[in-house]
Amino acid sequence: MPGNGLDYSALFNRDLPPPSGPWEGHPRYNFIGGHSDPDMVPTEEFIESAARVFRDDPRNISMYNFSGGPQGILPLRRFLVDKLARHRGIDTNIDDVLITSGSGQGIELINEILLEEGDTVIVEAFSFSGALGNLRRRKVNFAGIELDQDGMRMDHLAEVLADLRAKGVRPKYIYTIPTLQNPTGTVLTMARRQRLLELSEEYGVPIFEDECYADLIFEGEYENAIRSMDDTNRVLHIGSFSKTLGPGTRLGYVVAPWDVMSRLLSRKNDAGTGVMDQMIVGDYFTNHYEDHILEMRAALKRKCDALSSALRESFGPSIEFEVPRGGMYLWVKLPPGVDSRDLNGPALREGIAFNPGPDWSADPDAAANYIRLCFALPSEAEIWEGVEKLAEVFRREGALP
Amino acid sequence: MPGNGLDYSALFNRDLPPPSGPWEGHPRYNFIGGHSDPDMVPTEEFIESAARVFRDDPRNISMYNFSGGPQGILPLRRFLVDKLARHRGIDTNIDDVLITSGSGQGIELINEILLEEGDTVIVEAFSFSGALGNLRRRKVNFAGIELDQDGMRMDHLAEVLADLRAKGVRPKYIYTIPTLQNPTGTVLTMARRQRLLELSEEYGVPIFEDECYADLIFEGEYENAIRSMDDTNRVLHIGSFSKTLGPGTRLGYVVAPWDVMSRLLSRKNDAGTGVMDQMIVGDYFTNHYEDHILEMRAALKRKCDALSSALRESFGPSIEFEVPRGGMYLWVKLPPGVDSRDLNGPALREGIAFNPGPDWSADPDAAANYIRLCFALPSEAEIWEGVEKLAEVFRREGALP
Repeated sequence: MPGNGLDYSALFNRDLPPPSGPWEGHPRYNFIGGHSDPDMVPTEEFIESAARVFRDDPRNISMYNFSGGPQGILPLRRFLVDKLARHRGIDTNIDDVLITSGSGQGIELINEILLEEGDTVIVEAFSFSGALGNLRRRKVNFAGIELDQDGMRMDHLAEVLADLRAKGVRPKYIYTIPTLQNPTGTVLTMARRQRLLELSEEYGVPIFEDECYADLIFEGEYENAIRSMDDTNRVLHIGSFSKTLGPGTRLGYVVAPWDVMSRLLSRKNDAGTGVMDQMIVGDYFTNHYEDHILEMRAALKRKCDALSSALRESFGPSIEFEVPRGGMYLWVKLPPGVDSRDLNGPALREGIAFNPGPDWSADPDAAANYIRLCFALPSEAEIWEGVEKLAEVFRREGALP
Repeated sequence: MPGNGLDYSALFNRDLPPPSGPWEGHPRYNFIGGHSDPDMVPTEEFIESAARVFRDDPRNISMYNFSGGPQGILPLRRFLVDKLARHRGIDTNIDDVLITSGSGQGIELINEILLEEGDTVIVEAFSFSGALGNLRRRKVNFAGIELDQDGMRMDHLAEVLADLRAKGVRPKYIYTIPTLQNPTGTVLTMARRQRLLELSEEYGVPIFEDECYADLIFEGEYENAIRSMDDTNRVLHIGSFSKTLGPGTRLGYVVAPWDVMSRLLSRKNDAGTGVMDQMIVGDYFTNHYEDHILEMRAALKRKCDALSSALRESFGPSIEFEVPRGGMYLWVKLPPGVDSRDLNGPALREGIAFNPGPDWSADPDAAANYIRLCFALPSEAEIWEGVEKLAEVFRREGALP
């Protein structure tokens, strides 16, 4: 029966998301996802690194976990220990570092070992869609803590923790992106970081610190990681190379004490993270990280300025946003009553893609009139054109006055 | 409280495997896992490929799913379509191919969309430990079908299917490694492949065909894939680059019709498979696959001969094994009453690692007196030395006369 054949519909797991549609290519004006700046890909340096590491250690390719075992190859872990000390104030060692296949795998593994259906965790009211999606898939309850210009509000956190304790609920963790928060771009003040540690201790709840963006502060000194202020093992720290280098390299990391690490390892069933990525990126960053990150910050700052200016020019005062101290996103508030989910289709038909706010919100409806724009990928010219066209679409759809 | 700190024990998911121990390095005589031949890593060709692809398409690094979308980059999928036609008789197209992060991810995704706790699947009595472990983790029931020198026994399969139907159970799939079966090395005859398709149709049960080893037949023509004989979409086909190239590259693939593919894609939450691996391996294999695979087969055959001879010399007639037509494993039967799990520790203490049979068996105890030896990684000299020492350990432990 060609073209007919076996019907799988009765065989599928009954709890699946809707099927994916066919791939339609990237949009012309691409403000979605966490793509990085394509002009920042260090082609010739990558080729040099590839030549060096393939010649030095070809056996890595032929084995599972050759140099360094399941936690990742040693040169990359050594680079990380050094970088985390220099940039994040973190005192750690290679035994507490796990290389993951993107920071998404760090989230997946931490959730896998800590969470069961029906558990409760605490998140920021607006947060990373991938982290929220993972919790929803696991049928875990989450409480969203309000954010202001200084990051997560500690008064609200204290209130929620007390309220949960009164109900007999001990949350499994407090998930935060303290430095250049996704999507709001806020940075948690040092005083609040200290307060967060105190609340974590008072309630016996670990802190799950996600620092995918921290090194993308545009200028000057920046706040140390929460992990750097703690010597009681209550902070599980993750990060990524997707944002500082590019998401095509699937590399992230977890910093965790051994009692947690040994559990993460027993659940890392992927037969290891790709060693080519580990070898090439480890060599490149060991030799070039400081220069690379300075260039990356400068390029992102130019694009951030372009997007901010373009938005002010094309959208005028009917939208609100804060210009962040770094990162790759603007979190833009549209007029009240607008639902950004309704604007997505019309914009895509004009070749413009943005992320509707509800996917980045613990309570989706609370972010109905928000959109997230990533400025890392498009050129400055594309930013100006795309924003102008986006404003036209929004006006036509009645979302702007 | 330095060195004291937060106690995670009350926070862990209650259904976790035992924690991993610290990494102790690779054993001196390494007969475990599916490592490949380190002398086969094409260092200079990899460097050439890396230079070509990084210069041609650097944007791949900076984006999620740049060229080709979530199913994988186009050059690698085009290579696969071509290779599957040439070597496996499979007529497919790039829309039916998904690049995965190792074939383990293919197993994970197929299980994720088809299986719920309490479901039933059919496997070969001796089978891949990773596939069996995945089923156990999901609390899925599995029935093991007996194998003989021609692969899975169709009379036993027919009996089990009829028996399950009588109990009102429709299995979700029949998992088979038809060509160079893991661990037995058997090849399912063409007549049995045909019969398997008939049984699949009669009972409405898909076939899950795992062909990680198929291209490693040492010499001559070899049997086409089951997928090549089917035009009714009842075969889900997976494969790997770990065995033909090296497991440090985390690349595998799934061939599936769109109604299944669209579900796999909606569950592939890893933000894409690493593009460096895809780009470099895609370029290398497009240019060198035929030569590469001939060299790989010849090297493996030499090592297979060495291991077979060494076993006969050091162990004598008290063990049994068939010399396979290809692949990288020998499946060795020890005298009755021996439990290979008890021999593992003593061998490791002498620097020799093997895989105890029970991990590769639907019924662990049924393979208590089996071990699996992988001959791909050690040199021929190490094979001879390692086997001699292993026989000494086994004699000392009373496992051999």
